[in-house]
Amino acid sequence: MLYNKDKLTDRQQNLPSNTGRLITFEGIDGSGKTTQIELLSARLAAEGIPVLLLREPGGTQIGEAIRGILLDKAHTSMCIETELLLFAAARAQLVREVIVPELDAGKWVICDRFYDSTIAYQGYGRQIDPTVIRSLNQLAVARCRPDITFLLDLPVDCALTRLAGRNRLKDRLDNESVSFMQRTREGYCQLAKDEPDRIVIMNATEPEEQLAEHIYHTIREGLAT
Amino acid sequence: MLYNKDKLTDRQQNLPSNTGRLITFEGIDGSGKTTQIELLSARLAAEGIPVLLLREPGGTQIGEAIRGILLDKAHTSMCIETELLLFAAARAQLVREVIVPELDAGKWVICDRFYDSTIAYQGYGRQIDPTVIRSLNQLAVARCRPDITFLLDLPVDCALTRLAGRNRLKDRLDNESVSFMQRTREGYCQLAKDEPDRIVIMNATEPEEQLAEHIYHTIREGLAT
Repeated sequence: MLYNKDKLTDRQQNLPSNTGRLITFEGIDGSGKTTQIELLSARLAAEGIPVLLLREPGGTQIGEAIRGILLDKAHTSMCIETELLLFAAARAQLVREVIVPELDAGKWVICDRFYDSTIAYQGYGRQIDPTVIRSLNQLAVARCRPDITFLLDLPVDCALTRLAGRNRLKDRLDNESVSFMQRTREGYCQLAKDEPDRIVIMNATEPEEQLAEHIYHTIREGLAT
Repeated sequence: MLYNKDKLTDRQQNLPSNTGRLITFEGIDGSGKTTQIELLSARLAAEGIPVLLLREPGGTQIGEAIRGILLDKAHTSMCIETELLLFAAARAQLVREVIVPELDAGKWVICDRFYDSTIAYQGYGRQIDPTVIRSLNQLAVARCRPDITFLLDLPVDCALTRLAGRNRLKDRLDNESVSFMQRTREGYCQLAKDEPDRIVIMNATEPEEQLAEHIYHTIREGLAT
């Protein structure tokens, strides 16, 4: 785990106590983000912290409509540039309509994916020029940056085994190759190396409850109110 | 009219005769683009030229879905960054799925709006940083540039009079101020000054048939096969 407690604590000291926190979860599909987000939010809410859960793409009326286009299985002809721009469009709306106002109101916003996903999936996975992606992310989020990001990391074969066990309908984005998932995972790990003060790598092969405990304590140590 | 016949003819000499042509029409709403596109395409088709008409945003299944989001009157909360990114997303798809293959097949593609619209509307109208817009346009169209662009120019009050006379349902983008339309018109005129070899300003207050004649002869002189 690359988490640096001292640095997180430094940042915490610079945050006004009455503003919210932006916590994001990242990782390839099958890494267990949804479960961990539910466990964390329940625990924070039980402590009286006002929590808001969001997912990307989506989280607004416009964003959910964009999500519909992105996931539609009929859209097999979607080019990678269109996909990239649609993710950015949904994100721009989510940041301005929801995330920034809710943070200003003191909420703790937990987001299932944020801009690191675009760098990992479209940059490393689809191999689009990272400069282009970073400039789009900048346009989409402006100064809205996560206070902490949990990267739930696990080997691609473990993720595939978990996904195979899920009984759900596949969407357009599920039809990706193993090498694509591998590049995406490597991209995430590179991001965590580049920003160790923000991105905390968690071992997603740990049992659910144990992983939840690690995440909770990282939050309490680093982002306490 | 800023049209430079010699320069267009120079360009024409550099175009292989078996490739298509990309002709775009620009101008504020009410400038008469739709009518002129219909008149031009009918005349070219009557001469045996294979013509394809497209509109932006739209022109593909994915692009029409994006158009639906952009025009939906319920989407009053759409932020300008989202709008900009959605236009770019629809354009990226149109270029790769339709325009480039059709040009390669020898079609003359006539497009109702293209990337100049984004510079005029989002850049000048909504006052988003032009550098951001040009970089998005670059991502969306890559090397696909119009051979000629007709800017149907007319004063905003004339456009408003025409629009008031139309019996149609308004969409989200119709609710713009006069000053927005004025800035957009000025933006278009500046673009035409910057690229006089490509963008031809036409006086859109001319009678329809006379304007159509001007456009047709500009095409025949500049882009003949």
